Amino acid sequence: MPNPTAAMLVIGDEILSGRTRDANMHYLAGELAAHGIDLKEVRVVSDDAPAIVTAVRALSEGVDHVFTSGGIGPTHDDITADCMAEAFGDRIDVRADAARLLGDHYAASGRDFNAARKRMARIPDSATLIDNPVSIAPGFTIRNVHVMAGVPSVFKAMVASVLPTLTGGAPLLSQSLRVNRGEGDVAGPLAALAADFPDLSIGSYPFQHNGAYGADIIIRGPDGARVDGAILALSQVFPEDT
Amino acid sequence: MPNPTAAMLVIGDEILSGRTRDANMHYLAGELAAHGIDLKEVRVVSDDAPAIVTAVRALSEGVDHVFTSGGIGPTHDDITADCMAEAFGDRIDVRADAARLLGDHYAASGRDFNAARKRMARIPDSATLIDNPVSIAPGFTIRNVHVMAGVPSVFKAMVASVLPTLTGGAPLLSQSLRVNRGEGDVAGPLAALAADFPDLSIGSYPFQHNGAYGADIIIRGPDGARVDGAILALSQVFPEDT
Repeated sequence: MPNPTAAMLVIGDEILSGRTRDANMHYLAGELAAHGIDLKEVRVVSDDAPAIVTAVRALSEGVDHVFTSGGIGPTHDDITADCMAEAFGDRIDVRADAARLLGDHYAASGRDFNAARKRMARIPDSATLIDNPVSIAPGFTIRNVHVMAGVPSVFKAMVASVLPTLTGGAPLLSQSLRVNRGEGDVAGPLAALAADFPDLSIGSYPFQHNGAYGADIIIRGPDGARVDGAILALSQVFPEDT
Repeated sequence: MPNPTAAMLVIGDEILSGRTRDANMHYLAGELAAHGIDLKEVRVVSDDAPAIVTAVRALSEGVDHVFTSGGIGPTHDDITADCMAEAFGDRIDVRADAARLLGDHYAASGRDFNAARKRMARIPDSATLIDNPVSIAPGFTIRNVHVMAGVPSVFKAMVASVLPTLTGGAPLLSQSLRVNRGEGDVAGPLAALAADFPDLSIGSYPFQHNGAYGADIIIRGPDGARVDGAILALSQVFPEDT
């Protein structure tokens, strides 16, 4: 059975303007690979309702799971929750379960549970909450879309809440071999290897170090014995250079 | 006149599998902001021809300029050039101008200009070459799509070759103000500020430091006097906390 598929939607002007370097994509990619879920596509869009709605609908139709990051805080530009309700034709308002979590949290810390903070309890009717042990304000799952915060520590905590609830596939295993030859010398044998091992993903990442050319060859697949076999075959092609 | 718009297409299994953390998106975002070109969307897809063709067509229709990174090397999984020809109905083969650049380069360094390296001279008929001072193998521009390498040093050099040839707009200016209050306290005044300055982008980036809550407020726009005015107005709302 093929692995489940996923896509990610990163929401935020700060990524597209170059102010912030996104960290969540790389983190999620690694977690999904370990869980046997194939990440097929990532999109980054700005804090713009039509862009968010269009993107989440398109991604939701194409894969088993969509993960979003960003835009669920208390400020005026945090519009992700409302966009999700719009995308899936759901009603949205401050929801009692989320308001209770947040109200208790602010009461305990002596801070005002004001109108801005109540925005963080706006959850679509049909959604289920995602636990946020870091800063309480929950994420949520609507249809096959898991809506999470953009702050990296909170994003990570929410991924840890969601991922164990999803059926994974065979984790992607990988091995690498460094070949001390220019990528153009490696490319021919690598194409032959790819033809012999069509079930594996074989990538080549060239480098130049102190004027010498080389390439790191990464071989990935769900079957460890096949990955071992391909690495062995490759090392026999370049006995002097690996 | 509004600024020109752009999108980016990042091509590569290594990003989606979590092996490599993309660096080119953040770099390009900063360069485009400085050049007055608004980056509207980024997509990341795997080394899969239908995914690449579909994405580049969709992005090319929606913005003034598309920038791609990845998939133009000598190995079997470098399929970007052929995908661009397919996307735009162009013919593609080893092209004399690119083959001459590469042939001279390999002759000078005593390396074999073999079949794999000749793949890097496959350029669509209608494309114009993009200079690559780092490793010679050129990128190319086809229609409004600038096709560049994924290796960060080469990507940067190609961006430096292309960007001065494009008409820019007003560079996006930004100023920031740190407010030592929880984001939920800042959100109300910030929404009022956004209503007073609809021409500016106002973002809030919360942090927690030694148990104290705060938010960095970033205000961006093409008109420096307006940005200054908004920062001043905001600092007067929080005289004790900035």
